[in-house]
Amino acid sequence: MSLPNHITPALITLLGAEQVLTEATDRLAYGYDNSREQALPDLVVFATRHEQVVGVVKLCHEHGIPLISRGRGTGTTGATVPVSGGVVLSLERMNRILRMAPEDRLMVVEPGVTNHAVQALAAEHGFFWPPDPTSGAVCTVGGNLAYNSAGPRAVKYGTPRENVLGLRAVTGSGEEIRTGVYTTKGVVGYDLTRLLIGSEGTLAVITEATLKLTPQAQSKRTLQAIYADMHSAAQAVSAIMAQPVVPCALEFIDHRAIEMVRAHSRAELPENAGALLMIEVDGPEAAMEEMVAAVSAAARNDGLLRLQAANSAAEVKALWATRQALSPALRNVAPKKINEDVVVPVSRIPELIDGLDRLGRQHDITIVNFGHAGNGNIHVNLLINPDDPAELARADACLAEVFALVLQLQGTLSGEHGVGLVKRDFVAQEIDAASLGLMRQVKTVFDPRGILNPGKTLPLEDTSRTV
Amino acid sequence: MSLPNHITPALITLLGAEQVLTEATDRLAYGYDNSREQALPDLVVFATRHEQVVGVVKLCHEHGIPLISRGRGTGTTGATVPVSGGVVLSLERMNRILRMAPEDRLMVVEPGVTNHAVQALAAEHGFFWPPDPTSGAVCTVGGNLAYNSAGPRAVKYGTPRENVLGLRAVTGSGEEIRTGVYTTKGVVGYDLTRLLIGSEGTLAVITEATLKLTPQAQSKRTLQAIYADMHSAAQAVSAIMAQPVVPCALEFIDHRAIEMVRAHSRAELPENAGALLMIEVDGPEAAMEEMVAAVSAAARNDGLLRLQAANSAAEVKALWATRQALSPALRNVAPKKINEDVVVPVSRIPELIDGLDRLGRQHDITIVNFGHAGNGNIHVNLLINPDDPAELARADACLAEVFALVLQLQGTLSGEHGVGLVKRDFVAQEIDAASLGLMRQVKTVFDPRGILNPGKTLPLEDTSRTV
Repeated sequence: MSLPNHITPALITLLGAEQVLTEATDRLAYGYDNSREQALPDLVVFATRHEQVVGVVKLCHEHGIPLISRGRGTGTTGATVPVSGGVVLSLERMNRILRMAPEDRLMVVEPGVTNHAVQALAAEHGFFWPPDPTSGAVCTVGGNLAYNSAGPRAVKYGTPRENVLGLRAVTGSGEEIRTGVYTTKGVVGYDLTRLLIGSEGTLAVITEATLKLTPQAQSKRTLQAIYADMHSAAQAVSAIMAQPVVPCALEFIDHRAIEMVRAHSRAELPENAGALLMIEVDGPEAAMEEMVAAVSAAARNDGLLRLQAANSAAEVKALWATRQALSPALRNVAPKKINEDVVVPVSRIPELIDGLDRLGRQHDITIVNFGHAGNGNIHVNLLINPDDPAELARADACLAEVFALVLQLQGTLSGEHGVGLVKRDFVAQEIDAASLGLMRQVKTVFDPRGILNPGKTLPLEDTSRTV
Repeated sequence: MSLPNHITPALITLLGAEQVLTEATDRLAYGYDNSREQALPDLVVFATRHEQVVGVVKLCHEHGIPLISRGRGTGTTGATVPVSGGVVLSLERMNRILRMAPEDRLMVVEPGVTNHAVQALAAEHGFFWPPDPTSGAVCTVGGNLAYNSAGPRAVKYGTPRENVLGLRAVTGSGEEIRTGVYTTKGVVGYDLTRLLIGSEGTLAVITEATLKLTPQAQSKRTLQAIYADMHSAAQAVSAIMAQPVVPCALEFIDHRAIEMVRAHSRAELPENAGALLMIEVDGPEAAMEEMVAAVSAAARNDGLLRLQAANSAAEVKALWATRQALSPALRNVAPKKINEDVVVPVSRIPELIDGLDRLGRQHDITIVNFGHAGNGNIHVNLLINPDDPAELARADACLAEVFALVLQLQGTLSGEHGVGLVKRDFVAQEIDAASLGLMRQVKTVFDPRGILNPGKTLPLEDTSRTV
């Protein structure tokens, strides 16, 4: 689309010239995220205050211009890619921490603040905010809320939906709302806070969030368990999750991931290693020995090859090195790999892994799996070159079967990456038609002209691309 | 209203004669809850299966008949009182536990199961479901979800919104939906699960819930702290909540509550006791001593008169006796007292208590306060006789000021009792007009003919009764 002539001057008046990017070369960088999707926005604007967001939304609403709000673009599903053109509203400069209230265990922030900036201030007061995506140094809290992004700690401490008390936001018609409360309990009116979290900017633009803080545990211990095969590792995950000591991280990597790491790093791993778990336990120092013993006992089974506990910061680092070598190794082998983040109930992980093995062989695709085993959240990596049409076709066929398998196991298609563009056409396989109908109507309630992030999250009504 | 002639026979055909109450004497008991509101339903029906609920809703939808779903009627806000007549659908006989999956930390239940039945089965496997209203032996999980009811444990373990994975439900047009997931992570589509939780049966009838279970802690310790005045107690609450050991209960009663208990029980309390805290800490046994020491240190200040830790089950019972003597004592003094459940940020509790003291004097009403201090959730009891018009008028005037004070302190009008009828006309003071407009439209999306629990939760559009 092309914007009406007076829109750019109107936005420059509203925001200031330095807050508006008109040159194509400048706009380019706001047309992609960490997926393979890309599109050039007609205009890129920055807001630094709530009132500016209201102004931008109102103008776009009045003229029916698509408005895509975004943070730092670390998403992996194309959710911020402006496929219908229009205005990209970057909130990265709206990054103030408005209030830190340790006595009420909360922090009020603007959406553009980075996850790590929140963690740093919280830590000064002995707290943390549980969501901890790998991209935490760069990604914004607004983005975390848009996708309900979590990370390893979710297994014990939950996702953004469990760690946000309230929001300030602007709906698609430019209406200003406040949702939720400043307290840890509240049941007046419907829960619009959780409705906005995970809605990928399709219902409203979040301009402020009240984050619920959690006290830091006194101590933490790191363990690494190596198994002969994935079944033994999955059995250990089930056993760990069935006993009372909830780990604060329970990550796994499969045998192909181990091969990658072995080929591309100096990690020392047993010859017959078939799966690896990273386990972290936090809590009071006095109970650490006992807690580690309980988790270790659950981790032990016939397939266990080696169980190591770190006794120093250096050892913690060494144990994590294998896991951390994985991403660079994968990037090296398949820079454009397809990374899914399906979830199944913990008890179904073995069936999922077996199924993935079978599907990989069937479609002649190397699949590498790792992820947040304690939540059953598995990052399924298809090592293909999507620029090769034949490989991409094989991957598409394989993925359709992966998603069918996940749903058959009572799982969900996304744990923390969201839907965006890339999973949009699969959503109707997970969500029933009646619920989708309700979601579409809810979308219309919040965004009557459909300007907010059009074409994302919900399947298109005429889905010629459904599988 | 009177029902069309063929409705009763149609429902008898659908449900069976023993599932339909037509006599006024039988219907009477389904026309009230634990508030002072009452109304006679035109018909009372019971469902035992999801399909029956679908049938009942479809019939009511077709004929525009009000449909009020309810559990055991332990609510305190009139939310299940059929003020517009119509059909009351009791779910108390739909009380099966459909699945217990300790390996996935979840339980699937029908809405009529009691809270304690859930706890009992969970306990057999070493788990519990955190919401624990005082009425747990009687109240249903469906009711807990309708009001987002919590209880003392919420301070550490959260409310139903943090402890439910997914739902099955029937919307006001009789559409069957499934919301949420069977996993602890999931971000596909909008969060309809939390939208239904706390909506008091105005959006859909919940027919199944997947409850997230939490492992029982190894040990628990009970402490009682008595203070010279409420300020010292509130200061202790703040100090306890600002350190890392989160108590699993942090309850308080104020000086008037102490007087009540002293007058109506044999509890031994220091002469100058001005406030009392009950503190429970749970966790691994090895850390108990240290955890109790940390909480005790936070509880100590110049106003502390006595701090006791229980060393046996008998001592635990003795320490709780004071708190438990309160409700009977209150019922004795003011059987029809008004009980509110406002919430303020923990740091504002002293201001709230001071304000309540002032308002009590001003309106010549004895106000007794107790509640879940760790959440800032205060049960404000106005000891009046509401059958006396003069007393009721004073109480209404006082309550309006109480609510204004709560909102001024960034609090909320209800923590766990909900809105129903009795707080409906105050909701617009807490929630902005734009959000209320959205909520009304969401209501219309889920319930286009407005048959589900009409007149509850949201303020009437023409609010002649607003304060």
